[in-house]
Amino acid sequence: MITKKELKEINLLDTKKGRKMQQRFVVEGKKSVAEFRAEGFHQRALYSTAPTPHEGAVLVTENEMQKMSFLKNASPLLGVFAIPQHKTIPLKGRILILDQVADPGNLGTIIRICDWFGIKHIIGSLDTVDCYNPKVVQASMGSLARVECHYLDLNAFFSSDQRPVYGTYLTGTSIYNTNLTEDALLVMGSEANGISDKVSSFIDHKITIPRKASNGPESLNVAIATALILGEIAR
Amino acid sequence: MITKKELKEINLLDTKKGRKMQQRFVVEGKKSVAEFRAEGFHQRALYSTAPTPHEGAVLVTENEMQKMSFLKNASPLLGVFAIPQHKTIPLKGRILILDQVADPGNLGTIIRICDWFGIKHIIGSLDTVDCYNPKVVQASMGSLARVECHYLDLNAFFSSDQRPVYGTYLTGTSIYNTNLTEDALLVMGSEANGISDKVSSFIDHKITIPRKASNGPESLNVAIATALILGEIAR
Repeated sequence: MITKKELKEINLLDTKKGRKMQQRFVVEGKKSVAEFRAEGFHQRALYSTAPTPHEGAVLVTENEMQKMSFLKNASPLLGVFAIPQHKTIPLKGRILILDQVADPGNLGTIIRICDWFGIKHIIGSLDTVDCYNPKVVQASMGSLARVECHYLDLNAFFSSDQRPVYGTYLTGTSIYNTNLTEDALLVMGSEANGISDKVSSFIDHKITIPRKASNGPESLNVAIATALILGEIAR
Repeated sequence: MITKKELKEINLLDTKKGRKMQQRFVVEGKKSVAEFRAEGFHQRALYSTAPTPHEGAVLVTENEMQKMSFLKNASPLLGVFAIPQHKTIPLKGRILILDQVADPGNLGTIIRICDWFGIKHIIGSLDTVDCYNPKVVQASMGSLARVECHYLDLNAFFSSDQRPVYGTYLTGTSIYNTNLTEDALLVMGSEANGISDKVSSFIDHKITIPRKASNGPESLNVAIATALILGEIAR
């Protein structure tokens, strides 16, 4: 069983403020918990509705688990992990930059796509959704254990970084005619407004995903667009 | 204002049973409503919280609109359209087949991707989520007005159709080494189990999206996988 204090603390991890205070985040589901453990994340607590071989797991009732869970239907395992200290951003290689991406499901999906295509670092603008938001963790399906998300003032970052900057727009050079350099910053804009004017001033190469249907939709979802560009790079 | 009877009928359109009974579905948002009107969908009712140039629009309060809406935050315009009669499936060209895709957000996103890449027809297995589900309509962002979804017994369909069948698996020939024929059926499996055994027996070509990271995620979301494959074909 869990104490009222523990439950209250876990419930507070739904908010950015709560996570900042406690420096912890929640991972739900056997597979995801196993992936964060495998990657060496520091486990602060573990709750299970069934006996588990994991050391230090606290047995709870399904009712208690549902009270802790941020899911509609709780999973049998819930882990609380320490938010890792920020590591350095490599000066070489390809990094994905997110400018004001707001939807947790989109960020989680983007983290999973980066994990698939071998992109190890994402930099979000300070107003991009927090990667330790339970909905992001859930949508990333364990990939957040392997992809590092950094949050920075993009102005300052672009001013100091030397890599060429590629930005995705509704018009630009086709991704099929673009060879992204080995060292590159790839920027994706927000769901509602694309890349902001402030960030646009740092873009060296405007690229676009050609639409095949002449009367098709105006744009693609940001996670879908990220997948198409990273897929083209991987090719 | 709306009558209690109208409100009750609209609320019933959240369920497949209600839509089948009334042969209607709901579209929310100015842009989406405009797209269904532009494509000639038969409008049965239109509700607006502000004066609108659309003929026959009923002015309602924001409170009434929220009671009708299937969204957390209602949009200013809600249209009720007739479900169109099933049209014929073309015998030529490329068709996307969905085997037990269950998530409304995934189907809506897939419809939008098909619209982008010029795929005009989707065939879902009988247990694939209904395309007139309000969450699907919402996620398709108007693209459902241009992409036709058919629901069929896939066994019977594959037995009668002559086109080569490509199925997406975790292992198979890389999509980068596959040339999908002009006339082709492309099958995507369910979120949880991939392509079912029953459907697998009809697959002529097993294809896969190569994973770049050796220790990355086991699989990709079905909408992301669909985008990557259709993107590669469009290329």
